[in-house]
Amino acid sequence: MDAPEQDPAGSFAASLDQEDYRLAVVDLLGALAYGELTAFERLADDASFAPTIADKAALGAMAVAEYNHFALLQARLAELGASPEEAMEPFIPALEAFHERTAPGDWLEGLVKAYVGDGIAEDFYREVSAYLDESTRDLVLLVLEDTGHSQFAVDRVRAAIEADPRLAGRLALWGRRLVGEALSQAQRVAAERDALASLLVGGLSHRGADLAEVGRMFARLTENHTTRMATLGLSA
Amino acid sequence: MDAPEQDPAGSFAASLDQEDYRLAVVDLLGALAYGELTAFERLADDASFAPTIADKAALGAMAVAEYNHFALLQARLAELGASPEEAMEPFIPALEAFHERTAPGDWLEGLVKAYVGDGIAEDFYREVSAYLDESTRDLVLLVLEDTGHSQFAVDRVRAAIEADPRLAGRLALWGRRLVGEALSQAQRVAAERDALASLLVGGLSHRGADLAEVGRMFARLTENHTTRMATLGLSA
Repeated sequence: MDAPEQDPAGSFAASLDQEDYRLAVVDLLGALAYGELTAFERLADDASFAPTIADKAALGAMAVAEYNHFALLQARLAELGASPEEAMEPFIPALEAFHERTAPGDWLEGLVKAYVGDGIAEDFYREVSAYLDESTRDLVLLVLEDTGHSQFAVDRVRAAIEADPRLAGRLALWGRRLVGEALSQAQRVAAERDALASLLVGGLSHRGADLAEVGRMFARLTENHTTRMATLGLSA
Repeated sequence: MDAPEQDPAGSFAASLDQEDYRLAVVDLLGALAYGELTAFERLADDASFAPTIADKAALGAMAVAEYNHFALLQARLAELGASPEEAMEPFIPALEAFHERTAPGDWLEGLVKAYVGDGIAEDFYREVSAYLDESTRDLVLLVLEDTGHSQFAVDRVRAAIEADPRLAGRLALWGRRLVGEALSQAQRVAAERDALASLLVGGLSHRGADLAEVGRMFARLTENHTTRMATLGLSA
């Protein structure tokens, strides 16, 4: 087994042969897997509020796509010698807290949540993927692929606001609440999971060190969120 | 197009070229499709009550299998020139009424419901499949394939009763309520949908005529239900 290679910036060549890197990847895939599993549940649940059978079927198809992503992550965790259940376990409280505090009151709030919430999660994992070994990065980018939900949500929300412009105020407020809860839970995870947090800032040698970079990343996430809200026809 | 062929018993060779037969098949596939779509939703919903992540993942996989069956039925309905939404529409009230009246109070009631409810539905569609053209019958039997849910439910319910035998009384009562509601909704559908009901009793030429055969079928459904309850370790 090779010794960790340090580059001048202090990061290292990510390799699954390194135990601390492997554990960080297990953490990352565990978080992603539980996120996909709850996304599946949430979309299936939203399907019950769908105003038409066609919408119900469309949401069902997206839920199935999320589940298939979950299954890929579960299989990779097992390949890495990890128990998928144990890998997901540490991320249950943060994800459950997020969903409890942001239970949609209706169909439109559910769509905004799925669009905005998935968008933030996707940005977050894309940031992290820059620091991954190739095979892990490929898997992460594959499971982040849009399942068609974004366009569906944008179309439905824009049409609803066009039909009743008064909705815009309530949904904008809802979007702000969502991003606040998402960032607060993400910070909680980053604070509790050293390995995962260290992946985020460019390598385990930086463990806990580069809070400024984490801050810049949160700024980028917030900026992208603003763009997404505008796409929905809402102010951020 | 050939004229309907009557056999001596008064049924006919089922052919999708016959408009009344095609409409009956659209009815049947519509009922089955909406059943699969709600089974998907229900299993995904049950997944949120799962006591472990492994159980949650297992239920998710079964929900996905139901959705894939739904997608096959949706595609076949479109091939038959029918709108899948319109084909499912007439069966919404009966299925929603069934699910509203039998909302499980906990994880075990959900498992018993899935096992017993799917079992009755499967028996029902198998009875009907005897009267179908080959391509429709193949599709119906394919989507009726057990998605692994039965054994999962049996294992979990038996283990729970073994751990706490007092559960048996409550779950047996629950099973009786389920079969009562299922048969009452099935009778409602049979009464309202002539085409579907006529498929059931062996051909459109019997339309509304053979209530005795329907009665015998209900007796067979009830008998199979008793066997399933015994498999769960419950009295019917």
